[in-house]
Amino acid sequence: MPDGVAVLGAAGYGGAVAAAILWRHPSLELTAVTARSDVGRRHDELYPRHRVPLELEEFDADRIAERAQSAIVGYPHGAAAPAVSALRERGLKVVDLSADFRLDRERYERWYQAHAAPELIDEAVYGLTETHRDEIRGADLVAAPGCYATAALLALCPLRGNIEDVVVDAKSGVSGAGREATQATHFVSVTENIQAYKVDGHRHAAELEQELNGATFTFVPHLIPVEQGLLASCYVTTDLAPEDAVDLYREAYEDEPFVELAAEPPGTDDVRETNRCRIHVSAVGGRVIVLSAIDNLWKGAAGQAVQDLNLMLGLPETEGLA
Amino acid sequence: MPDGVAVLGAAGYGGAVAAAILWRHPSLELTAVTARSDVGRRHDELYPRHRVPLELEEFDADRIAERAQSAIVGYPHGAAAPAVSALRERGLKVVDLSADFRLDRERYERWYQAHAAPELIDEAVYGLTETHRDEIRGADLVAAPGCYATAALLALCPLRGNIEDVVVDAKSGVSGAGREATQATHFVSVTENIQAYKVDGHRHAAELEQELNGATFTFVPHLIPVEQGLLASCYVTTDLAPEDAVDLYREAYEDEPFVELAAEPPGTDDVRETNRCRIHVSAVGGRVIVLSAIDNLWKGAAGQAVQDLNLMLGLPETEGLA
Amino acid sequence: MPDGVAVLGAAGYGGAVAAAILWRHPSLELTAVTARSDVGRRHDELYPRHRVPLELEEFDADRIAERAQSAIVGYPHGAAAPAVSALRERGLKVVDLSADFRLDRERYERWYQAHAAPELIDEAVYGLTETHRDEIRGADLVAAPGCYATAALLALCPLRGNIEDVVVDAKSGVSGAGREATQATHFVSVTENIQAYKVDGHRHAAELEQELNGATFTFVPHLIPVEQGLLASCYVTTDLAPEDAVDLYREAYEDEPFVELAAEPPGTDDVRETNRCRIHVSAVGGRVIVLSAIDNLWKGAAGQAVQDLNLMLGLPETEGLA
Amino acid sequence: MPDGVAVLGAAGYGGAVAAAILWRHPSLELTAVTARSDVGRRHDELYPRHRVPLELEEFDADRIAERAQSAIVGYPHGAAAPAVSALRERGLKVVDLSADFRLDRERYERWYQAHAAPELIDEAVYGLTETHRDEIRGADLVAAPGCYATAALLALCPLRGNIEDVVVDAKSGVSGAGREATQATHFVSVTENIQAYKVDGHRHAAELEQELNGATFTFVPHLIPVEQGLLASCYVTTDLAPEDAVDLYREAYEDEPFVELAAEPPGTDDVRETNRCRIHVSAVGGRVIVLSAIDNLWKGAAGQAVQDLNLMLGLPETEGLA
Repeated sequence: MPDGVAVLGAAGYGGAVAAAILWRHPSLELTAVTARSDVGRRHDELYPRHRVPLELEEFDADRIAERAQSAIVGYPHGAAAPAVSALRERGLKVVDLSADFRLDRERYERWYQAHAAPELIDEAVYGLTETHRDEIRGADLVAAPGCYATAALLALCPLRGNIEDVVVDAKSGVSGAGREATQATHFVSVTENIQAYKVDGHRHAAELEQELNGATFTFVPHLIPVEQGLLASCYVTTDLAPEDAVDLYREAYEDEPFVELAAEPPGTDDVRETNRCRIHVSAVGGRVIVLSAIDNLWKGAAGQAVQDLNLMLGLPETEGLA
Repeated sequence: MPDGVAVLGAAGYGGAVAAAILWRHPSLELTAVTARSDVGRRHDELYPRHRVPLELEEFDADRIAERAQSAIVGYPHGAAAPAVSALRERGLKVVDLSADFRLDRERYERWYQAHAAPELIDEAVYGLTETHRDEIRGADLVAAPGCYATAALLALCPLRGNIEDVVVDAKSGVSGAGREATQATHFVSVTENIQAYKVDGHRHAAELEQELNGATFTFVPHLIPVEQGLLASCYVTTDLAPEDAVDLYREAYEDEPFVELAAEPPGTDDVRETNRCRIHVSAVGGRVIVLSAIDNLWKGAAGQAVQDLNLMLGLPETEGLA
Repeated sequence: MPDGVAVLGAAGYGGAVAAAILWRHPSLELTAVTARSDVGRRHDELYPRHRVPLELEEFDADRIAERAQSAIVGYPHGAAAPAVSALRERGLKVVDLSADFRLDRERYERWYQAHAAPELIDEAVYGLTETHRDEIRGADLVAAPGCYATAALLALCPLRGNIEDVVVDAKSGVSGAGREATQATHFVSVTENIQAYKVDGHRHAAELEQELNGATFTFVPHLIPVEQGLLASCYVTTDLAPEDAVDLYREAYEDEPFVELAAEPPGTDDVRETNRCRIHVSAVGGRVIVLSAIDNLWKGAAGQAVQDLNLMLGLPETEGLA
Repeated sequence: MPDGVAVLGAAGYGGAVAAAILWRHPSLELTAVTARSDVGRRHDELYPRHRVPLELEEFDADRIAERAQSAIVGYPHGAAAPAVSALRERGLKVVDLSADFRLDRERYERWYQAHAAPELIDEAVYGLTETHRDEIRGADLVAAPGCYATAALLALCPLRGNIEDVVVDAKSGVSGAGREATQATHFVSVTENIQAYKVDGHRHAAELEQELNGATFTFVPHLIPVEQGLLASCYVTTDLAPEDAVDLYREAYEDEPFVELAAEPPGTDDVRETNRCRIHVSAVGGRVIVLSAIDNLWKGAAGQAVQDLNLMLGLPETEGLA
């Protein structure tokens, strides 16, 4: 059974979608799901709609290694690194959904905390397939980008080197805040409300900074009364002529299976429960405006993780995701 | 200052609305707000929209009694009884929003727990103004009805004595579940979802049972992705001729300031942020169907409590509520 | 190409989902999509998420017959019958989503209008697979049940013959009202609102009446601020002992691929974008309460239509739907 | 009766709120409501919650002039100008909610159409009270700003003269799109969706351009699944030191009754159904970020119109709005 795969943290929203995708994956077999809460309950009791009939287990690296050659880890940052480390020691290929391996050590420890497995940072590849495909193919450890970074980087990477300055105004649905019940995710706090948060600096900006190497940018996230969906509205100051800018997107994405250029501004509903990113580029009054819509749990987390895993395992990149 | 009033539990949704109403009340002065969390914060920091610029304090009966002659208590059941008891000992008139004084002791202890202040049960009046107005006028302690009971009883009381059997299918917005952040109130659990709960017996049914004395009924509550609003759809088997049934409603409610008979099925949006109950009566195929819409935080909690308090204090019943 | 299939009315919500399912169906090829509006536009322009890259055409029976041996018709009632008739004349097997062939002529003309193709009524089979499977297998024309009827009948059919009386309180998401923009489907009318409608008699009740032959029932539909999802809460008066009632459901549904009995009250989100019906049965105080949740566009329309079509064409019933 | 006031276009969302506010206004008497649809129906049939018991009439300038000395006009652009003209001829003071008198003629005709009452343009005052208070006091015709312009201008005016460049990313609830039922306002199109529109140039930008005289800006509106509420997120490039920028807001707004500076990013829910604008200013990485939240129907339309009218009539500015 060379194709066994485990999902750690499958009780969370991202991990749950990863489990659902892998349960139906034609070449991989989901053999274990772990969770830090709800151990002993069946996954389809928590998520009837996903119909994954496996029991949630406590994480035990040895028991996982008996049944799986690869894993997607859906634990929160901090909790992910030790689990990833234990799996890597046992030879599993790992895609990590947390922030633990996305950043260089200095950036990570500035925004988060002391790193629990710094020796693995160098081996980790940043899992934005569209810009790191070849590295991902040979990788044993991939850090799936954050949902904000995914939408913003797909919007901006074609212009890399030509961006003088960019404002990223991002709007996210509530599943991006995770399954933990807090005042901020209470239905009553969210519905009939639109609100910016972490205006003074959001951790996800560190990914943008790292990947856009050098471009000046302002990033402000907003919470919107939507379950799944993320729109990054990017306002770019550039010297490029508008037509040249648009051409760069065509070149960058014409062969990409999961990025599409739209004639109209994309709605997040256009990509809900798909692994696609839908991008609209226009040039107005000296600025290039790029609108980029994804499903934060799919292309922004679990879908992209499976896309990464497919590449790492030598499978067709789109398997299980179409 | 004979008109000082306090709100206990003003950090919760019901208590917060009570504070907002009383802050603008023409004859009463809101002199204190207490909370079990967020002590020291200003109320308008938690609820900017309500604009009550008072600081939340820890509950201290003596300090409240110095500044208030009456109080609305918004603590959860169990926590309410001791606070009510302490205020009553100091002579304050009290409206309690919890279940602690709504039921006779036997019913209460069957559905809830051992009662913390059983000696007060007899003095408490059930605060459904439309059916207990005179008692409320003379009362020192009023138990405001639950939101489900309010909508259902206003729908059914005109038929009391003529109900053979009734199904109450109730739909509530999420604020009815309270401010506590739980899996059930998480935006992602609620949105794009419709779900019944406590099918096997909801505590609020005990109020119906007590107030409808003897009518057989089935009560099932549903959670709906709405912030504020409650609709009780009541299906009554009765021997009454349809026209007679409708007449009973006209008689019962023609002079009621907060109950209106609607020509069309009422929407909860018709009564949002008002103290009104909007009722539609029709007779189809041998059944009388009564649809009753309220705002669960207003007529279903805080608004009704102020209505009660107005009566207890000899003020016009509608003051502060129009 | 013996497996060509067309979808008529693919610009509507139900037809659009039918097109999306068939486009991915392993044994059928979607060869044509028609619409009464938006002719000439590509389907994936209207519904980017469904990714059906076909152009919407005007309906021309001959041109359809060249490319398709079967069809799903998604036109509104009245408009459907002539199209169905034209397709049947050309030998196509048809599943019709409208009400045109669900009812006997007398019932139809009482609730709707003069029937445009009465000669076809007798050949039409009512497409609730779980109760008419064998007839559907041999049918050339199947009338897919309405969404309300689907949820209610799956909830009630196991008790057929034992129902003394039943109240069906049904709650539907807005897509059930169709794609036409009206005051009733305006976002502002729907959000933060819960409302019953057609209390005095809803056309869909005619289906219940016909299929439950003889049981007395009350049916009231409600509009809920949800996109896709329908919950039928059924309150049954019966002489059956509770355990016997529950047993009937186990027997009826244990081998059904798309009906599942749930230990907890089902949420519509549990079945969103699936062809499943999730049912919870309990007995409280002399009544049997049956809660039945479906996605109104899937099991309540397009999904069920494909399930019917699979049977009519001798394919595995679940193909394209799992 | 020197205080009679009429609302034209009271069937629309903005006009309906204007009628609701004026019906309860302590110094003015709402004597007539007109509409272009629904003539003959009572206003409280359309909007039960607003409880305005007047009958909607067809517009007749003479009949209005008999009963009213002032009016708020809620007709769409194009339809407003002739009605305003007819009322002005009869001596009424008018606040117009449409775009017809907001812009100079050249701008208006570029973005809209030939102007129907160009002779009135010069007499019209732009009704952003906070920046045009004195002019409004003496005006007979005031053009209430658009909702987007209101939020953005209150966010930006304190920096006027110091803005090098600004990106305004605005998010609006659906009531801003008006009561007309269109595909864009259908519940199914809006819910679970976030979408930019008119990226290439929105008419409301013309107001910004005119009022910010000269500052370069990019304005992109987004539609959000919210009923009432508008957030303008403004990203300003300026030479001002951050502290100086913040000081300018304190100076500008410390005495304003309806503008408040918030310590945290404002949510639209903080100002729902109030005439307040809540603003948060911060300086991050060389940019000043200003977040400005209003209720689009209140401060963004009807509330502001009443504020204007109060000034025009010599009444306290906040009357009827607190």
